[in-house]
Amino acid sequence: MGRLASEDHLCLIRCRQRSGALNRLDRTISRIKPLDREAMELAHARQDTLTKPRGSLGRLEELSIQVAGITGQAPPKIEDKVIVIMVGDHGVTAERVSSYPSEVTAQMVYNFLREGAAINVLAGHVGARVLVVDIGVAQELEPHPKLMSRKVALGTANMAHGPAMSREEAIRAVEVGIEVVERELARGMDILGAGDMGIGNTTPSSAIVAALIGAPVAQVTGRGTGIGDEQLQHKVKVIERALMLNRADPDDPLDVLAKVGGFEVGGIAGVILGAAAHHIPVVIDGFISGSGALIAVGLAPQVGDYLIAAHRSVEVGHRLVLERLGLVPLFDLNLRLGEGTGAALGICLVEAAVKILTEMATFAQAGVAQALE
Amino acid sequence: MGRLASEDHLCLIRCRQRSGALNRLDRTISRIKPLDREAMELAHARQDTLTKPRGSLGRLEELSIQVAGITGQAPPKIEDKVIVIMVGDHGVTAERVSSYPSEVTAQMVYNFLREGAAINVLAGHVGARVLVVDIGVAQELEPHPKLMSRKVALGTANMAHGPAMSREEAIRAVEVGIEVVERELARGMDILGAGDMGIGNTTPSSAIVAALIGAPVAQVTGRGTGIGDEQLQHKVKVIERALMLNRADPDDPLDVLAKVGGFEVGGIAGVILGAAAHHIPVVIDGFISGSGALIAVGLAPQVGDYLIAAHRSVEVGHRLVLERLGLVPLFDLNLRLGEGTGAALGICLVEAAVKILTEMATFAQAGVAQALE
Repeated sequence: MGRLASEDHLCLIRCRQRSGALNRLDRTISRIKPLDREAMELAHARQDTLTKPRGSLGRLEELSIQVAGITGQAPPKIEDKVIVIMVGDHGVTAERVSSYPSEVTAQMVYNFLREGAAINVLAGHVGARVLVVDIGVAQELEPHPKLMSRKVALGTANMAHGPAMSREEAIRAVEVGIEVVERELARGMDILGAGDMGIGNTTPSSAIVAALIGAPVAQVTGRGTGIGDEQLQHKVKVIERALMLNRADPDDPLDVLAKVGGFEVGGIAGVILGAAAHHIPVVIDGFISGSGALIAVGLAPQVGDYLIAAHRSVEVGHRLVLERLGLVPLFDLNLRLGEGTGAALGICLVEAAVKILTEMATFAQAGVAQALE
Repeated sequence: MGRLASEDHLCLIRCRQRSGALNRLDRTISRIKPLDREAMELAHARQDTLTKPRGSLGRLEELSIQVAGITGQAPPKIEDKVIVIMVGDHGVTAERVSSYPSEVTAQMVYNFLREGAAINVLAGHVGARVLVVDIGVAQELEPHPKLMSRKVALGTANMAHGPAMSREEAIRAVEVGIEVVERELARGMDILGAGDMGIGNTTPSSAIVAALIGAPVAQVTGRGTGIGDEQLQHKVKVIERALMLNRADPDDPLDVLAKVGGFEVGGIAGVILGAAAHHIPVVIDGFISGSGALIAVGLAPQVGDYLIAAHRSVEVGHRLVLERLGLVPLFDLNLRLGEGTGAALGICLVEAAVKILTEMATFAQAGVAQALE
């Protein structure tokens, strides 16, 4: 389904290429290539010469090979690590789907900028920079050197009454993500963690996942920041109503994003597409990043190979998202915060994997005997 | 079963205390106290004031509370991190239970000292020091500032023909572990990761686990560094024979260690007991550390609360060990190397958890609104 849509899309790109009118999104999608098999083989061969039983570092070995394939380098380099937090507000919060007021979105932006939030602590712990992108907060924010202002609108419209955004806004949101990647690339970024903030944003994410996967809403809708049973039932009904009303086309990821999505979800989809186009590994966080990844993969299926899932979130729909993406998360610590917190910890493991490939001694160097035959 | 043995042991301690003849092991066991509930409550209360939905950092929150309870500090301090690698050789390698020759044990010690091994890379990545302890390598090793020489003997005897070591040697091995902790404490150690090296050491570990848990040998015996099907069946038979021959008393962990154990396993048990006695969190690695933990918990059941399991190893018996210890590992990355590699990554998560507790802003500090009622 996503694949068909994407083939249509590629056909569209080719037509537009002929006419010379290729926009940023199409250009980016057309740049995404399969992983570099040669670099992967080199990385694999090197793993087998290092002073450990073959394969004994399990997923760390696999990660190092994947990153070699993504970057086209064996061994790859992971030095400049960036967590991008896409922040947006949601009109659907008027339906009382969250336990926090919408104002908390902007308050948390200031908390990020003053380095008081969980993601600041965890990014600091793993040596990553944090970049906050206002892609649709419902109020004007004070300028700050670590805040990138790319507001598509002052929050989405209430999807329970009509589309969350126009198709043009959806494309703009995705293109903001691409722009962020291109800016950070110029600053030396080697790996990107995708994070989100936006009170109410599990609601559009569940709607996106239900639409794209074709799963019943109740199966992919969870408690977000911690709502009770009654409010959860209400949230499911709100999402069902929004899906009925807006009739998003499941074969058109941009239509789904526009009808029932959020700006930060579109931004994350763009970040993923941009990173893949530029050979940068992307560590995705929880349910919101996962819904962004579903949109990205719907637009460009080959992007899936560039993704690393940090963790399995408590949010109930996340398991299905990971299954659909074909990703096995690195850990399961019962996280459900977002902000890129899981992605930061995941980046730490990816860096460890790459260091194993780069820094360990070989059997020959260390004078260690190999396995008996 | 372990509990009963331990009650006997405590009774013995009390008798010896009266007679004034308390040895290092008994003194250490008598110092191990339950976790500090007050510090845990303070840590829990602080978690609930931080700018995130309550409980949204899942196991990171739980870890921070456990470490507060272990250290008696809220918030605790994790700065000086130490990986202790206990290294020993095994007479049972004469039975061809491993795919590597015994000489690799000493070769790997030199690799650790030259910082070429996986544990050096991962410890460096997480900012931990590595201490290598020769507790029973089968050859004399060159002195080195990072090598602590505490050889109990030049490898164990072949347990397929008789006891691996004497009871006195078993006690000495455990006491070496305690001594290591006391030495590192004086240098400022805040957290300890338990690692192992010793060609053939999954064989004694499987024997220990089978004896202490009462599980069939085949259920707790795996491929170690990577043996094939036929060699695995042979390994199971060797262990079964050693258990039949030596008749270790499952209610006496020191007897099990002496009859079918290894010096490094005893050393790890000692490290765990010593750390618990001195309020230091211990991150255990894989199957070998797990078998050491079973011995430690057999000697002092309250030690279990001081343990943090880093990961679930590929080695088949590890799952049962974790179940018996009541521990849920932090991740499952298909590791099976040992050396403390998983423990190093686990320490990184524990430190992250403690930093969350220490460094995050509260709702009041950040001016962020709390959840609606």
